[in-house]
Amino acid sequence: MLKKGDINRTKAAYWCVVSGSDILLSQDALPFGTAEALDLPYQQAIEVGRYQDFPVLWLNECDVKRPLELVSLRECLDFPQSLFLLMSKAVQYGHMSQTMRFCPQCGGRNHLNHNQLAMQCSDCRTLHYPRIFPCIIVAVRKQQQILLAQHPRHRNGMYTVIAGFVEVGETLEQCVAREVKEETGIDVTNIRYFASQPWAFPSSMMVGFVADYHSGTLKPDYSELSDACWFDVDQIPLVAPSGTIARELIEHTVGEIKRSL
Amino acid sequence: MLKKGDINRTKAAYWCVVSGSDILLSQDALPFGTAEALDLPYQQAIEVGRYQDFPVLWLNECDVKRPLELVSLRECLDFPQSLFLLMSKAVQYGHMSQTMRFCPQCGGRNHLNHNQLAMQCSDCRTLHYPRIFPCIIVAVRKQQQILLAQHPRHRNGMYTVIAGFVEVGETLEQCVAREVKEETGIDVTNIRYFASQPWAFPSSMMVGFVADYHSGTLKPDYSELSDACWFDVDQIPLVAPSGTIARELIEHTVGEIKRSL
Repeated sequence: MLKKGDINRTKAAYWCVVSGSDILLSQDALPFGTAEALDLPYQQAIEVGRYQDFPVLWLNECDVKRPLELVSLRECLDFPQSLFLLMSKAVQYGHMSQTMRFCPQCGGRNHLNHNQLAMQCSDCRTLHYPRIFPCIIVAVRKQQQILLAQHPRHRNGMYTVIAGFVEVGETLEQCVAREVKEETGIDVTNIRYFASQPWAFPSSMMVGFVADYHSGTLKPDYSELSDACWFDVDQIPLVAPSGTIARELIEHTVGEIKRSL
Repeated sequence: MLKKGDINRTKAAYWCVVSGSDILLSQDALPFGTAEALDLPYQQAIEVGRYQDFPVLWLNECDVKRPLELVSLRECLDFPQSLFLLMSKAVQYGHMSQTMRFCPQCGGRNHLNHNQLAMQCSDCRTLHYPRIFPCIIVAVRKQQQILLAQHPRHRNGMYTVIAGFVEVGETLEQCVAREVKEETGIDVTNIRYFASQPWAFPSSMMVGFVADYHSGTLKPDYSELSDACWFDVDQIPLVAPSGTIARELIEHTVGEIKRSL
């Protein structure tokens, strides 16, 4: 998977310089050029894929010996999808190298195994691949209305669909039913798969579903949500931005409702 | 989620005594009874759910101070599904407590946080939830035939569908296409979601798909597989056992082909 041999000072590439969920942009675009021209350390760079016939390289900010201003990867949601996914990949490998410094099995020091793109324990040699947390995200429809919720962490007041982490010993469909029940008190039925999206905030696999209201009264869990409401399709509030599976789910469901009116 | 208060010496419960992917059975069933009657240490037991109005408890084998003979959880695939999922849950929590002894962020010693059912670092206090590795599993159909592969690790020579771990920065559908291509050399199209299954060997979320052959010549990757073939539906070999999503995928696809003949 990994190709280090190709990277040198004078070959042009796309550079993903990352820290946490942040990434370096140059004039609102992913930096493109040679290590020499961009003054970036090619020795630490690792290829995570190719875009428009050029390598896309991952580099941790801490390997660049000068101050950089990074922006949140969320600001790149409108980039071409294939490029955004490679940038996500770099962010997730960066997250791996920052949060998996020690072996959870023996406590030994991990280092990056370049061939496997995984962390490896210097003591017990166990390989630790980047963690991906499976999550569900679901648009719930009740006749001509859609269920949308507001989270305290979204400061702009936007609404979105229900989401949550999968727990051990449950199917994705059981997780959908459990999360909707826990967060809103309602029971859903007719749970159908929609699509999936890797989500590098910090490292999830969003599995999208649509479902229909079955029973129960809407009672938002205010420890998780600041609001949850049924919305008519002509009164949709500010919602999750384009480029997110949340937005796709909302647009899909609103479209279905509109066609049924 | 966790209820320790209810557990005492004289209340009947189902007991999941686990180690790795192994579990204790008693006369081919999950042990049922009081801690007193079964001579099991109730102080270490943690409730992971309820079955037939009784608590289902998780206990690590190492907390039982006498030798026990465990069997593989795989031998319980024909147990009632809701019970099997609770047993899987106990196995996965056992796996968590055995493989996440140290904090991957700071190297500190982790302990079990009973309220969160997660490991927590004694030094930096970070919570580490049980890891769940998202995997795809896919039945590929080519007109009246199904693609089945043999893995060196299955000693009984059984065949099954293609499966593999999701990598960072790819959708589930991209993972399906990549895994089939890598393992068999062929390209697939028309990738449709089928179902999901938590899989405690040791801790995966299997996301099942069906897909159609698109192009390419079958060239098994013999570093991963011992064989891969197109099978007519009247010549299906020994396949994955009942209770697995692999078996469901095979039966579903064979059924579809038979109905189309």
